[in-house]
Amino acid sequence: MKKAVVLLSGGLDSATILYLAKEKGFTPFCLGFRYGQRHLKEVNYAKNLAKLVKAPIEIIDIHLPWQGSSLLDKSTPLPMRAKINPDKIPSTYVPARNIVFLSFGASYAETLGAQAIFIGANAIDYSGYPDCRPEFFKAYEKTLRCGLKTGVEKKPIKIFVPFVHKTKAQIVRLGTRLKVPYELTWSCYSGGKKICKKCESCRLRQRGFDEAGVCDPAVG
Amino acid sequence: MKKAVVLLSGGLDSATILYLAKEKGFTPFCLGFRYGQRHLKEVNYAKNLAKLVKAPIEIIDIHLPWQGSSLLDKSTPLPMRAKINPDKIPSTYVPARNIVFLSFGASYAETLGAQAIFIGANAIDYSGYPDCRPEFFKAYEKTLRCGLKTGVEKKPIKIFVPFVHKTKAQIVRLGTRLKVPYELTWSCYSGGKKICKKCESCRLRQRGFDEAGVCDPAVG
Repeated sequence: MKKAVVLLSGGLDSATILYLAKEKGFTPFCLGFRYGQRHLKEVNYAKNLAKLVKAPIEIIDIHLPWQGSSLLDKSTPLPMRAKINPDKIPSTYVPARNIVFLSFGASYAETLGAQAIFIGANAIDYSGYPDCRPEFFKAYEKTLRCGLKTGVEKKPIKIFVPFVHKTKAQIVRLGTRLKVPYELTWSCYSGGKKICKKCESCRLRQRGFDEAGVCDPAVG
Repeated sequence: MKKAVVLLSGGLDSATILYLAKEKGFTPFCLGFRYGQRHLKEVNYAKNLAKLVKAPIEIIDIHLPWQGSSLLDKSTPLPMRAKINPDKIPSTYVPARNIVFLSFGASYAETLGAQAIFIGANAIDYSGYPDCRPEFFKAYEKTLRCGLKTGVEKKPIKIFVPFVHKTKAQIVRLGTRLKVPYELTWSCYSGGKKICKKCESCRLRQRGFDEAGVCDPAVG
């Protein structure tokens, strides 16, 4: 049995990754995080998705007392940019977020005997975060080879980032083929009853569905 | 002002690192962890050491529900090896421990505007952990260069591992010169009133003091 840890946020990308990991023959073990994000709605979405595919899920509590991000600090307004500028790192950047998430992923994967960690990061429609770029994941994989027992034993854990070079539209098309229940995913930065349709994350998602020519079932 | 994050466990190595960082002109910001270790005695030692040098300290709670180590699982006996076998990774190995610790260190350092993270890892008298080897830290530093905003801005955060090639005896000699209050450090794996003198960590420490020709003030 091939096992994989799937970092599951409850959003569009990671939900699609979960279905992709299954299609590739992996038994998924999901990992979600409560890291001080503005709302915990996405965590509940992650739990429901894991339940739907009958995968175990661990939710890890991470407290970053130093904050350092508009995503964590409720007194800072969230960006409402109509246009993404890939040369500027936005205020929603959380220092070392994916570094922290993958470190827990590595610990879980090694303890499980999993061969892989799947993460839904995206370097194209990606908001400008440095820890979503291919060179980052390549460097991290080397760190795991050097720092884990499995690396020493020449059975290194791979980091799969299948969407790193994909547009949101390509992800939506793939997920539609894999029958990902997008109505059960949540991408909006605000945690209202309905999606806000204004935040950066809502805009990126909407553009993806529009370009793919697919109707977003999460939009009421 | 040069700032550095110092990973402080309350043991001999990290206490010495704290004093070394200060000697090198860094203003230290300490970071400790409650990660399910068998006792929290060392965390209190870390807090006291930070207080002594008037450095702030953050203690991060990390829960690894999958355990995977005799250090975390109280039902597994701790190793009492008289002789260290560097070719065998002991049961006290915690999968990805330093990977997790450094990920928080990176997040804290970047938020503070610190240039460096100091960690007291040791590749000689090191118990055989893969995440204490120089190649691991080199790979991790590259990961930070690729994954952090400071890396993109060409102001990368350095990981200083000044003891990576030092013996315990050399560390003790250096710390004695720096006037590290070793009576205020705790290395023993068990959390009794007195050190056990039997566990691997106690033996490594004792050998270091013996070889340095220094009396360990923590031994009653």
